[in-house]
Amino acid sequence: MEAVVLEPNLDLNLRDIEVAEEIGPRDVRVQLNRVGICGSDVHYYKHGRIGPFVVNAPMILGHEAAGTVVEVGSEVTELNKGDRVCMEPGVPDPDSKATQLGLYNLDPQVRFWATPPVHGVLRPTVVHPAKFTFKLPENVSFAEGAMVEPLAVGMHAAKKARIQPGDLAIVTGAGPIGMVTALAALAGGCSKVVMTDFVQPKLDLAAKLGPIVPVNPREESLNGMVNRMTGGWGADIVFECTGSSHIASELFEPLAPAGRVVWVGMPVEPISFDIVAAEVKEIRIETVFRYAHVYDRALALMESGKIDVTPLITDTYPFERSDQAFEHAAAMPESSIKVQVRM
Amino acid sequence: MEAVVLEPNLDLNLRDIEVAEEIGPRDVRVQLNRVGICGSDVHYYKHGRIGPFVVNAPMILGHEAAGTVVEVGSEVTELNKGDRVCMEPGVPDPDSKATQLGLYNLDPQVRFWATPPVHGVLRPTVVHPAKFTFKLPENVSFAEGAMVEPLAVGMHAAKKARIQPGDLAIVTGAGPIGMVTALAALAGGCSKVVMTDFVQPKLDLAAKLGPIVPVNPREESLNGMVNRMTGGWGADIVFECTGSSHIASELFEPLAPAGRVVWVGMPVEPISFDIVAAEVKEIRIETVFRYAHVYDRALALMESGKIDVTPLITDTYPFERSDQAFEHAAAMPESSIKVQVRM
Amino acid sequence: MEAVVLEPNLDLNLRDIEVAEEIGPRDVRVQLNRVGICGSDVHYYKHGRIGPFVVNAPMILGHEAAGTVVEVGSEVTELNKGDRVCMEPGVPDPDSKATQLGLYNLDPQVRFWATPPVHGVLRPTVVHPAKFTFKLPENVSFAEGAMVEPLAVGMHAAKKARIQPGDLAIVTGAGPIGMVTALAALAGGCSKVVMTDFVQPKLDLAAKLGPIVPVNPREESLNGMVNRMTGGWGADIVFECTGSSHIASELFEPLAPAGRVVWVGMPVEPISFDIVAAEVKEIRIETVFRYAHVYDRALALMESGKIDVTPLITDTYPFERSDQAFEHAAAMPESSIKVQVRM
Amino acid sequence: MEAVVLEPNLDLNLRDIEVAEEIGPRDVRVQLNRVGICGSDVHYYKHGRIGPFVVNAPMILGHEAAGTVVEVGSEVTELNKGDRVCMEPGVPDPDSKATQLGLYNLDPQVRFWATPPVHGVLRPTVVHPAKFTFKLPENVSFAEGAMVEPLAVGMHAAKKARIQPGDLAIVTGAGPIGMVTALAALAGGCSKVVMTDFVQPKLDLAAKLGPIVPVNPREESLNGMVNRMTGGWGADIVFECTGSSHIASELFEPLAPAGRVVWVGMPVEPISFDIVAAEVKEIRIETVFRYAHVYDRALALMESGKIDVTPLITDTYPFERSDQAFEHAAAMPESSIKVQVRM
Repeated sequence: MEAVVLEPNLDLNLRDIEVAEEIGPRDVRVQLNRVGICGSDVHYYKHGRIGPFVVNAPMILGHEAAGTVVEVGSEVTELNKGDRVCMEPGVPDPDSKATQLGLYNLDPQVRFWATPPVHGVLRPTVVHPAKFTFKLPENVSFAEGAMVEPLAVGMHAAKKARIQPGDLAIVTGAGPIGMVTALAALAGGCSKVVMTDFVQPKLDLAAKLGPIVPVNPREESLNGMVNRMTGGWGADIVFECTGSSHIASELFEPLAPAGRVVWVGMPVEPISFDIVAAEVKEIRIETVFRYAHVYDRALALMESGKIDVTPLITDTYPFERSDQAFEHAAAMPESSIKVQVRM
Repeated sequence: MEAVVLEPNLDLNLRDIEVAEEIGPRDVRVQLNRVGICGSDVHYYKHGRIGPFVVNAPMILGHEAAGTVVEVGSEVTELNKGDRVCMEPGVPDPDSKATQLGLYNLDPQVRFWATPPVHGVLRPTVVHPAKFTFKLPENVSFAEGAMVEPLAVGMHAAKKARIQPGDLAIVTGAGPIGMVTALAALAGGCSKVVMTDFVQPKLDLAAKLGPIVPVNPREESLNGMVNRMTGGWGADIVFECTGSSHIASELFEPLAPAGRVVWVGMPVEPISFDIVAAEVKEIRIETVFRYAHVYDRALALMESGKIDVTPLITDTYPFERSDQAFEHAAAMPESSIKVQVRM
Repeated sequence: MEAVVLEPNLDLNLRDIEVAEEIGPRDVRVQLNRVGICGSDVHYYKHGRIGPFVVNAPMILGHEAAGTVVEVGSEVTELNKGDRVCMEPGVPDPDSKATQLGLYNLDPQVRFWATPPVHGVLRPTVVHPAKFTFKLPENVSFAEGAMVEPLAVGMHAAKKARIQPGDLAIVTGAGPIGMVTALAALAGGCSKVVMTDFVQPKLDLAAKLGPIVPVNPREESLNGMVNRMTGGWGADIVFECTGSSHIASELFEPLAPAGRVVWVGMPVEPISFDIVAAEVKEIRIETVFRYAHVYDRALALMESGKIDVTPLITDTYPFERSDQAFEHAAAMPESSIKVQVRM
Repeated sequence: MEAVVLEPNLDLNLRDIEVAEEIGPRDVRVQLNRVGICGSDVHYYKHGRIGPFVVNAPMILGHEAAGTVVEVGSEVTELNKGDRVCMEPGVPDPDSKATQLGLYNLDPQVRFWATPPVHGVLRPTVVHPAKFTFKLPENVSFAEGAMVEPLAVGMHAAKKARIQPGDLAIVTGAGPIGMVTALAALAGGCSKVVMTDFVQPKLDLAAKLGPIVPVNPREESLNGMVNRMTGGWGADIVFECTGSSHIASELFEPLAPAGRVVWVGMPVEPISFDIVAAEVKEIRIETVFRYAHVYDRALALMESGKIDVTPLITDTYPFERSDQAFEHAAAMPESSIKVQVRM
C-alpha cells in the first residue's frame, strides 16, 4: 500500500510499502480518513529517534487517526461496516500485570503506532482490535475524531488531577497538549484555567476557547494573577505542559495548600524541585504517561458540546502533500496548533 | 426589627420581633437583599416541625440569602462595608471533632438559620461570621447569590460523586434540588445528565439548561434510554433527588459496573434495597447532608459562566407580600422552581 | 478422572467423569492437594441452584484450592514445574470492558469454578491460566493456600473500605467470611475489630485471632461497646458479613460521621435502610462482589506473618471421604469454621 | 518556673523563667512527665535557627511530651484531673481556611512548641487546648506517650500513602522518623518494609521491629532486593526519610507502575528528579508536613499492640541532666534512636 514512510536516513517518502495485515476475529479494518501530525512524528522525522526508540527500518508515520470501518472480524458485535471511528494507537498485552490492573498504558509491551518498529497509519487502511476502536458520534467529524488522540492526553491528565467542581487550574504551555489539557480541565470541572506561554498568538487563541485567562510571563506575573483571582489562597492544580526543565522551581508558588501538580510534559533534562516548598503545602505531584480508558469519555464530552476541538485544527493538507504537512508542523509557526492530513 | 415570623400556631406574620445581635470581632452585619424560600421553610409553615425540630416559639423563616455588608467586626480583613455577599446558613462549633476533621456539616451542634430555635433571615439585617460570608462576583446578582444555598446542595453531591470527566449521570426528580444537582454535575465533569420526573413542564425546563436528556417514565423507559446512550454499559452515577421511598429498587438497574448512587433526597420512610443487585456491580452508595466547603466553588462556577441558575428563579415577591410568596411556594405549581422574596 | 460430582438429582458421588482439558501456551496444569468447602458448594449440594445458576448437568464441586504445578504452557515464564500454588477460581473474558477497566470480577462472562456449568476442582488435576495461578511462599502450607480464596473476599472488602491506619471496624457475623474479613481488616490497618455473633464458640475463637473484641448481642449492646471504646464518636467501618436482612437497620447507629459500611453478605431478601440516619452522618455504603487483584496481597501478608489463617481450618477429610466432609460442612457445628478436603 | 532554656547565644540553661499561662475554659493544665528530644531541638541548640525561625529571645525547648492533667477548664468535659495524656504541640487558628478544610497542619498561623517565639515544654507544667490533648490508654506509658509526636509523622505519611492491604514499602533512612514510619506503614497495611541505611546498628535494630528487611547499600543492591521480593514488578511505596538530596534520583527505579513516593524528609538543597522515569510508571509523589488527625489513631494502634515504640526509646535522662541529654542527642551515636528527659 502507498504510505508516508520515514526511511532510516530520515527521508520522508510517499511510497509503496508492504504491510501484511490479516484480520482476526476481534479486529476491524479501518479505511483512514484523517491523520493528525504529532510532535513525536516530527521528532522522528527530524532526529530518527526518541529515547530508546530508533528508526532502524522504514516506518510509516502517524498515530492520530479517524476513518471508516470497512471490514469486521467474525466475533465483533459492537461495530459495523460503515461506522465512522477513531482508534487508540496503543495495544497492550492483555495478559500483562499492568493491563490486568487496568493500567494498560503502563504495560512495557504495548505496541504503539509510529513507535519503532511499529508502523503508523498515514496509509489507506489499518487492522486494529475492535476494543480500541471507537464509534464517532454523529456530530463529531473525522477531523475532530483524529483529535481524540491528543485530547486523550489532556483527559487522562484531568482524570489524574481528581478535579473537584470549581477548582482553579493553571496550564503551563499553550501548545497542542496544553490546549487540549485546558479543554479537558474545564470540561472536567474546573471553573477557570490560567494559561501561560511566551507566544502571544497562542494565548490569544486559548482565550477564545472558554474561561481561560491568558498570562504572558513577559507581561505580567502568574503568581500575581492567581493571588488576585483567589484572594491569596492559590490555585488548586498546575498542569505542566511545557516539558521545560526551567519551569519546575516555579510550580509550587502559585498553588494553594493541598494543591497538586500534574506533570504532562516530558523534559529531557532532570528537573530540580524545592521539595520543602512543596511540603509546607503538602502538594501532590502526579505524573502521567499517555492515557487509558478515556477515548469514550472524550467522545462523550465532544458529543454533548462540552469540548470543541475544531479551533485547534489550524492546518489541513491532502495525503499527496504529506511532506509539506510535515514541513509545516516542523516549522511550528506561531499561528498553528494542529496540522492534519486528509486521506 | 420587622420580619417574617412563623408562630407556634403556624400563623405567618410580617411583624416586629426583637432579635438581639451584637457583632463580634470576626463577624459582619449584612443587610438582606434577596431570600429564597426552601422546601423546609414551607414544611415548617405547613407542619410546624421537621423530625425532632419543632417550632415551639416564634421563629423567623428563610435561609437562602444574599445582601450587602453594612458593618464589619474589628478583626475582619477579607470583607468590607458595601460588599455584595451571600451566606452559609449553618455555623458549627469550631472545636467539635467533626469540624476539626473538615466535616463541619456533620457537627450535631451546628446552628442553622430557620431551624428551631435559630431565627432565619427574612428580616432587614443579620450578624454572621465572616468566614461563612462570601463575596459575590461582579456578574452574579443578589437573586443568583440567594440561589447559592440550594446550589451548594448539588455541588456537595457532585463532589461526593467523585465525577470522572465524561461520566454520564442520572438525576431523579426535577424539583429545585434535582435542577441544581444536574447543573453541578454538568459543571463538575459529566458529559450529559438524564433527568427523570413525572411533571413534564419541569422536564421541559430542565432540557433547556444544558445537555440534559429528559425522561418522563410515563412515556419512556429510563433503562432503555440509558442503554441506548451507553451501548448497554450503563450510567456512571445516579443522583437521587426525589426522596421517594418507591424509587430505591430501580436505582441499580441503569448503572454500570462500579457505578455509584448519591442519595440527596431525604425519604421519610425506610428504603428497601436489593443489595445483591448492587453487589454484582459493586455499586457505591454515598449519602449527603447539606454541604461543606462549596460556597466559593459554586460562586467560581457562576462567575466563569459554567453554571447559570437564573432560569430556576421563576417567581419573585416583595418583602411585604411574603405571605403570598409562601402560599405560592406551598402550592407547588408545575411551572415554578424557585420562589424568592425581594427585601 | 475421579472427582466429587454433584448430580442434577443432588446426589454427591466420588466417581469417574470425563473432563477434556488441553493445556494452552499461557496455562499451567496443577495437581490438586487441598480443597476447601465453601458455603456455595454446600448450597448447590443441598439446593441445586444459587439464583440463576442451576445444576442441570453433573458438576464437580470445589473452588478453594491449592496444589502443585505439574506442567507449564510454552509461553509461561513466571511458574515452573514443582511450584506449590493456589489459584483464583474465576477467569474473565480478557476483552470485556469490565476486565479492561481492571474490574474483572464484574465481568458477566467470567467463568468461575463450581458455578454451573463450569466444573470445580475436587479432582486430581486442573488446567488454569498462569496469570490466575499464584506461587505459595515457603512458609505457607497447601492448607493455608486453599484458604486464600475465602481470605480474598475479606481482602477485597478491606481494600474497598479504604481503611485509614488506626480505624476501628465492626464485623457482623463470625462465620468463615466474617473471620477472614476481620483478619484482613486488622492486617489492612485497623487498630481493633469488634465482632458480633450470636454463637459464642465462634466469638471465642475470634477473640484469639488478634485484637478482636467479641460482642454477643444477647449479652451486651454493640452500640454501648463502641461508644465506650470511642468516647461516643463511633466506629469507622462496618463489614456486614451475615447476609441477614434484619441487620441493616442497625448498621448506621454505631458508626461515626463519615463512617462506611462494606456490604459483603448476600441477603436473599431486600434490605430496608433508614437512609436519613445514614445521611446525617454521610455514611458511605460499599458493596463488594468476590474479589480482584488481591491474591498476591493475601499471600504477601501470610508470608510476613501478618495474617494467620490456620486457626480457621477446623476440620480436614481425605478425598475418599469427601461425602462426609460435605455432611460436616452442611451441619454447621458451632465449633467448625472451615472444612477442607486433602487430596 | 524552672525550665530548659535555650538562650539567643545558644547557651542551654536549666533556669527559672517566667511563663504566663492562664487557663481558658476549653484548656487543660498538664504536669509534664516525659519529654523527648527531637532533631529540631538539637538543631536550634546547635545553630539557633531553622529556616526563617530564629532564636532571638530565650526559648524553652522540647515538644514531644506526655504528662498528667492537673487542672481542667470550665467547659472541658472529655478530660479529667489525673488523666495521663500526651499533647499535639501545634495549635492552629480555628478560623483559618486551612483549618476549616481539615488541613490544620498547613495553617501558616499555627503556633508550635519550641518554634520561635513559642516556648516548648521542658518545664514543670503547660496549659494546652483540651482538643489537642489525648488520654493515654492504660497500657501506654508516659515514655511511649511522649513518642506519639514523632510517631504521628510516620502515621501521617502512612495515611497519605493510601496503603492498600499487602503493599510493599521501602523506607529510606533508619533514623527516628524512618523507624516510626516503618512501624506506621506496617500497622497501616503493608506486608513488609524494606529499610535502607548506611549505619548497620540502626538496620539491626529495625530488623527486630517486625517484618522489616534491612538493606545496607554498601553491601547489597536495593533494586536487586526489591526485584527478588516482587518478581521484578517493584515496590508500591517509597517513604523518603533521609532528607538527603542525593537520594532522589534513585527513588523511582525500585517502584512498580502506579507506585508512589511519600516525601517525609526535608532536604535543604533542591532535589533533582528524572521526571520521565516517574512518568513511564505514573508515579505519584506525595509531600507531607507534620501531621493532622492522627494522634488518636496512633494511640489506638499502640493500645491494640499493633505498634510498639519502646525499642526506639534508647536513652533516658533526668530533668536535672537535660544538658547531658542534649549532648547525647547531638552526638548521634549509632546505637541511639530516641533520647528522652524524665521530669
